[in-house]
Amino acid sequence: MAGFRDNWKLILGEIETALSAVDDGDIERLVEAILGAEKVFVVGLGRVLLTLQAFVKRLNHLGVRAWFVGEINEPAITPRDLLIIGSGSGESAVPVAIARIGKKHGACTALLGSNGASTLAMAVDLFVRIPVRTKLALPDEIPSRQVMSSLFEQCLLIVGDAIALRIVERKAITDLASLWSLHANLE
Amino acid sequence: MAGFRDNWKLILGEIETALSAVDDGDIERLVEAILGAEKVFVVGLGRVLLTLQAFVKRLNHLGVRAWFVGEINEPAITPRDLLIIGSGSGESAVPVAIARIGKKHGACTALLGSNGASTLAMAVDLFVRIPVRTKLALPDEIPSRQVMSSLFEQCLLIVGDAIALRIVERKAITDLASLWSLHANLE
Amino acid sequence: MAGFRDNWKLILGEIETALSAVDDGDIERLVEAILGAEKVFVVGLGRVLLTLQAFVKRLNHLGVRAWFVGEINEPAITPRDLLIIGSGSGESAVPVAIARIGKKHGACTALLGSNGASTLAMAVDLFVRIPVRTKLALPDEIPSRQVMSSLFEQCLLIVGDAIALRIVERKAITDLASLWSLHANLE
Amino acid sequence: MAGFRDNWKLILGEIETALSAVDDGDIERLVEAILGAEKVFVVGLGRVLLTLQAFVKRLNHLGVRAWFVGEINEPAITPRDLLIIGSGSGESAVPVAIARIGKKHGACTALLGSNGASTLAMAVDLFVRIPVRTKLALPDEIPSRQVMSSLFEQCLLIVGDAIALRIVERKAITDLASLWSLHANLE
Repeated sequence: MAGFRDNWKLILGEIETALSAVDDGDIERLVEAILGAEKVFVVGLGRVLLTLQAFVKRLNHLGVRAWFVGEINEPAITPRDLLIIGSGSGESAVPVAIARIGKKHGACTALLGSNGASTLAMAVDLFVRIPVRTKLALPDEIPSRQVMSSLFEQCLLIVGDAIALRIVERKAITDLASLWSLHANLE
Repeated sequence: MAGFRDNWKLILGEIETALSAVDDGDIERLVEAILGAEKVFVVGLGRVLLTLQAFVKRLNHLGVRAWFVGEINEPAITPRDLLIIGSGSGESAVPVAIARIGKKHGACTALLGSNGASTLAMAVDLFVRIPVRTKLALPDEIPSRQVMSSLFEQCLLIVGDAIALRIVERKAITDLASLWSLHANLE
Repeated sequence: MAGFRDNWKLILGEIETALSAVDDGDIERLVEAILGAEKVFVVGLGRVLLTLQAFVKRLNHLGVRAWFVGEINEPAITPRDLLIIGSGSGESAVPVAIARIGKKHGACTALLGSNGASTLAMAVDLFVRIPVRTKLALPDEIPSRQVMSSLFEQCLLIVGDAIALRIVERKAITDLASLWSLHANLE
Repeated sequence: MAGFRDNWKLILGEIETALSAVDDGDIERLVEAILGAEKVFVVGLGRVLLTLQAFVKRLNHLGVRAWFVGEINEPAITPRDLLIIGSGSGESAVPVAIARIGKKHGACTALLGSNGASTLAMAVDLFVRIPVRTKLALPDEIPSRQVMSSLFEQCLLIVGDAIALRIVERKAITDLASLWSLHANLE
C-alpha cells in the first residue's frame, strides 16, 4: 500500500524526468514569442485547458494581455498575436480547427504537446515538446504510472509557472508583492 | 394541452408585463453609470449570471470594458468602476458579499433585482427594479406561470440588449456591421 | 431618440415575428428527442452557448440529465444520447467538428439554426429553423435592427424556456415550487 | 540569469519542501471523507479554483460524483455530502460564505489551506494544512520565490492527483486504460 508521501514523490519524480527532456531553447523561443506578441490566446481541452487558464491568469498579472479561446471578453486575433495550443496528442479536432483559423488570421502559433508526428506539430510555427505519455501512448513518450494524462497536465502548469518566472526576470520586476495590485480584488 | 406557440406567447406576454413595470429613468441612470465608468463588473448566480455574461460580451463589442466577477482575466476594481449585481431576492450570500467588497473599494454599485426591501436594494447606489416573482415569491411581485425564476432571467437578457441599443445610440454607432471586427474570430 | 421602452418593444416585436416562423412540429420532435435520450449534450459559441447553458441548467432541474460540451464533469456520449447544436450560420468550425464527432459516436443530433443550406443543417438528424439574420445575413432570413445576432440568441433562450414548459406538461409536474429542491443551494 | 531548467528546479524543490510538511494522516482522513460521501463539492477562487476543477474532473473519471460550486449542473448539497474548500488565507469572503451555507445544510466540510488560525480553519470539520506562503505571508508559512500564491496552487494540483492515485488503490482499479471510457469524447 502506497501512502500520500509515496504518491507525491512518484508524481514529482515523473515531472522531473519529463521536464528534463524539454528543450531550454524551445522555451526561450516561446518566451520571446509571448513578449513580442500584442495579445496571447490559448486553446486546449479539459484539464489541459485548466492549466492553460492558470497560465493566462498569471500572464495578465505580469502585464501580458492574454485570453483563452471561448472567454467571455475574447477579442479578435490579428497577425500581431500569438496562439498557444496545448494538446498532448496534437490531433484533437477542436484545437486543430482553432489552430487552422488562427493561421488563417495570420497569427503566430505555438504548440505545447507530446506527439512530434502530429497534425498540430507539423502545422505550428513553434513546437515545444513535452514528451510524456498521453492518450495515444506512443513508443517515444515517457511512461507514467498516473491516471490518464495527469503527468502532461502537471508539466503544463509547471512550464507555465517557470515561464512566468522568466518573464519576471525579463521585465525586471523586482517587487513581486506589488503584483497583487493587478490581482482581482472582488473576493 | 399547450403547444409551443402557446408557451412562447405566454412567455412574451409575461416579459411585456414585467418590463412595463420597469422605470425608464432608472435604466437611463444605469446607462449613464455604464458610460461614465472606466470598467464595468457584473456578478450574479446561475442563470442570472449567464444573462449578465451575455451582457458583458455585448458591452465589450460596444467598446465598454466589462468583466464578470470570477473571470480568468478579471482586473482589480477601483473607485472609477461600476459593479452591477443581478439578484432577484437581493439576499443571496455571494452577491451580498461581493457588493460589500465593491463598496469597500469605492466602486459605484447598481442592482438589477426584484425585492425592493432587500439587503442589496438598501446597500447599492442605483436600484433598477424588475418586480417579478423570484424564489421569495413576495406579494408585490408580478406572478409567473414559468419554471422558477425564468421570467426574471429573460427580463435581464432583454434589459441588457435594450441597454445595448441605447449605447449604440449614445455612442452614435451607425455601422452595426462594423462591430463584427471586435468579435472573437477564433471560431 | 429612442428610450428604454421603445427598445424593449422593438426587441419583443422582433422575437414574436421570429418565433412565429418556427415550426411547432419541429419543436415537438425536439421535445420527443430530449425526453427519449439518456443524456443531452449542447454545443455552441459565445452568447449562443450562454443561452444553451441556461437551457442545460433548466433541463437538470426538470430531471433531464444534460451537459454542455466542455463542462468539467462532461461524460462520454453514446448512441442513446442527444447532441443539440446551436449555430445561426450552421458553418462555425467547432460546432461542425463536434457534430461530426457526435455522429461518429452514434448520437442523435439536432440543430437550432437559421441557415437552411448550411453544412450543419444538412448533417443533423433534426433541424429546428429559427430563420433570423445572423452573421451571414442571408436573403431568406428575418432582418433585425439589433446588434449582431442578438435576436437569434434571445430566440434561443425563449425557445429553451418554452420547451421547459412543455416538459413540465409532459412529465406532469404539478408542483413547480417543489423543483427548487433540485436547485443548487450553495448560494 | 536563470534559465528554464533553473526555474522548474526551483519550483519542484519548493513543492517538495511544502508537501513534506503536509500530514499524511490528514490526507488519509480526506480520502475517507471523499469515498464516504454521496457527492463532493469544491469551492475556491482564481487559480485555486482551476486546480480544484482539475481535481473534480479526475474524481468523476474515478467514479466519484463531484462538482464545483457554480457549475451549470450543480445539484443541491445534503448532509450526506462533502464540501472541500481551497483557500490559502482561509479568510476570503466567498469561500467563507459558502462554507457557512454548506454547514447549514449539514454537509461535512474540509479545508485545504495554509493559515491555521483562519476563520475557515476554525470552522471546518477537517483541515489539511499546506503551510506555504500565500497573500497574508504569515511567519509560520514556508516562503517561496515564485509569483503570488503559485506554490500553493501547484501543491493543490499535486495533492489532488496524489489523492487520485490513492483512490485508484482503494477502489482496486487495476486497468487504468479502461478509465478513458468515462472521459468526455466530444473532442
